[in-house]
Amino acid sequence: MRFRLRPQDDGFFELFAATGAILVEACRILTEAIGSDPVRRSELSDAMEEVEHRGDESSHALVRKVNSSYLTPFDREDVYQLGARLDDCLDLMQKALDRMVVYRVGALPDAVGELVQVLSRQAELTSEAMPRLRSPAALSDYWVEVNRLENQADQIHLRLLAEIFAGGYDAVEIIKHKEIVDTLEAAADAFELVAQTVETIAVKGS
Amino acid sequence: MRFRLRPQDDGFFELFAATGAILVEACRILTEAIGSDPVRRSELSDAMEEVEHRGDESSHALVRKVNSSYLTPFDREDVYQLGARLDDCLDLMQKALDRMVVYRVGALPDAVGELVQVLSRQAELTSEAMPRLRSPAALSDYWVEVNRLENQADQIHLRLLAEIFAGGYDAVEIIKHKEIVDTLEAAADAFELVAQTVETIAVKGS
Amino acid sequence: MRFRLRPQDDGFFELFAATGAILVEACRILTEAIGSDPVRRSELSDAMEEVEHRGDESSHALVRKVNSSYLTPFDREDVYQLGARLDDCLDLMQKALDRMVVYRVGALPDAVGELVQVLSRQAELTSEAMPRLRSPAALSDYWVEVNRLENQADQIHLRLLAEIFAGGYDAVEIIKHKEIVDTLEAAADAFELVAQTVETIAVKGS
Repeated sequence: MRFRLRPQDDGFFELFAATGAILVEACRILTEAIGSDPVRRSELSDAMEEVEHRGDESSHALVRKVNSSYLTPFDREDVYQLGARLDDCLDLMQKALDRMVVYRVGALPDAVGELVQVLSRQAELTSEAMPRLRSPAALSDYWVEVNRLENQADQIHLRLLAEIFAGGYDAVEIIKHKEIVDTLEAAADAFELVAQTVETIAVKGS
Repeated sequence: MRFRLRPQDDGFFELFAATGAILVEACRILTEAIGSDPVRRSELSDAMEEVEHRGDESSHALVRKVNSSYLTPFDREDVYQLGARLDDCLDLMQKALDRMVVYRVGALPDAVGELVQVLSRQAELTSEAMPRLRSPAALSDYWVEVNRLENQADQIHLRLLAEIFAGGYDAVEIIKHKEIVDTLEAAADAFELVAQTVETIAVKGS
Repeated sequence: MRFRLRPQDDGFFELFAATGAILVEACRILTEAIGSDPVRRSELSDAMEEVEHRGDESSHALVRKVNSSYLTPFDREDVYQLGARLDDCLDLMQKALDRMVVYRVGALPDAVGELVQVLSRQAELTSEAMPRLRSPAALSDYWVEVNRLENQADQIHLRLLAEIFAGGYDAVEIIKHKEIVDTLEAAADAFELVAQTVETIAVKGS
C-alpha cells in the first residue's frame, strides 16, 4: 500500500541527506589521514570522532522522527535499515583511522590511497542519492555504480593483500596493515549494502 | 496496528527473561575464566557449552511460540530479531572462552577483566529489561546505558590493542590475544544491537 | 495473511533452485582447489568467478521478479533475506579460494578437506530444499541437519585452529591459514542462516 507524501514528511529526506554529507566529510578526513604522519593522524582521529557524534545524532533524530510520524516515506523497516547501514559506513571509516593511530603505522602502500578514493566516490554518490530518495526508482545509476565501485575496491584490496604479504613486512606489520585494508574493504561493502537497501525501496515503490 | 495482549502472551516475556538470565550466567563463567589457569578454563568451557545449549533451547522455544501464537506482543520480525541478537551475545562470549582454551593463552592483560566487567553490566541490564518488555517505552534508561557501556568497551578495547602491540608479545601471541579481545568487543557491540532492537520495539509501540 | 499461489509464481522457486545448484557447483570447485597446486587453484579461481557472476545474475533476476510480481510465495522481506543469505554463502566460498590463491599457500591440513566436505553436504541439502520451498513446513529435516552440520564444522574448525597454532607454522603462515579456515567456518555459518530463514518462512506459513 502506498501513501501519498505530505510536505512535512520531507524531514526524512533531509535527515538522510545530512548523513550523506557526514559520510563525505568522513572520507575527506580519511583521505588526508592516509598521507599524514602519526601526529596529524591523531588530530584527524579527533575530528573523525566529532563527525561520528554528529552521525549518531542524525541517526537518533531519524529514530525519533519515525516514532513521531504516522506516515513514513517508505516502510519503517527500510528507514531503520537504511539508517543502520549508513551508520555502518561511518563506523568502519572511523575504525580504519583509529587502527592507523593505535598501531602507529607509518607510510601506507599507494594502493591504500586508491581504495580510499573509491570510498570517496561511493560516499559522494550516496550523498547525492539521499536527497533524491523521494523518487528512488530514478536512482538506478547510483546503485549500479556503487556496486561497480565495490567490485573495484575488491580488486584493489586483493592487490593490497598480495603486496602486504609479498615480503617487505614482518608478521606484526602484516597484522596491522591487514586490519586497516580489510576494514577499508568492509567500508566499501557497507556502501554497497546501503545501495541495496535503496534498490529494495525502489523496487517496493514501483 | 496494536493488539491488546491476552494473558497467555506472557510466555514470550518469560522466554526472553530466561535468555537474559542465561546471558548473566555466561558472563559469570567468562569472568571466572579470565582469572583462571588453562585446566580450569577448559572445565569452564564445558560449563559454557551447557549454558549455550540452554540458550539454543530457549531460542527454539521462542520460534515455536511465535509459530503457535496468533498474536505476538510485538511484530513477529522483531521477536525473531531480538532472539537472534540475544543468541549472538551468547555465541560471542562462548567464542572468546573457546579461543582462550584452544590457544592455551596464559594470564591476560588486566584490562581484559575490565572489558568483561562491562559485558557483565550490559548482561545484567539486559536481563533486567527482558521481563519488562511489556512496557518497552519505559526501558529508555536501559538502552541509553547499554550504548554508553558499549562506548566504554570500545575505549578499553583500543587501550588493549595498544598494549598487545606495545612490544611484550611476539606475533603469534598477538594474533591469539587480538582475537580474544576483538571477540569481547564484538560481544559488547552485540549487546548494543539487542538494545537497539528494544528501542525499535518501543518506538513502534508508542 | 496468506495468498493462494498461482502457477506463474513458480518462477520464484526456479530462481532459488538455480542458486542452490550454483552453490553445489561452487563447492565442487572449492573441493578440487583444496587438493590442487597454486597453478590449478588460479584456474579454479577464474571458474569460481564465473560461477559467482551467475549467482549475481540469479540474485538480480530475483529482485526483478519480486518487483514485477503482485503476489510473492512468501513475505517479500523473506524473499530478499533468503536471496541475500544464499549470496553470502557463495561470497564466502569465493573468498576462501581467493585467499588460497593470493597468499600462495601450499598443501593445506587434511581437516580443511573435512570442513569443505561439510560445506558440500550443506550445499547439497540446501540445493535439494530450494525447489521444495513451496511446502516449507516439510523441510524440517533439512534445517535440523544443516544446523547439525554447522556444529560439526565448528568442531573441525576448532581442531584446525589448534593444529595451525601447534608449532609447525610461522606467524605469517598462521595468519594466512587462519583466514582461510575462518572463512570456511563462516561459510558453514552462512548455510545455517539460510536454513534459519527457511525455518522462519515455514513457521509463518503454518
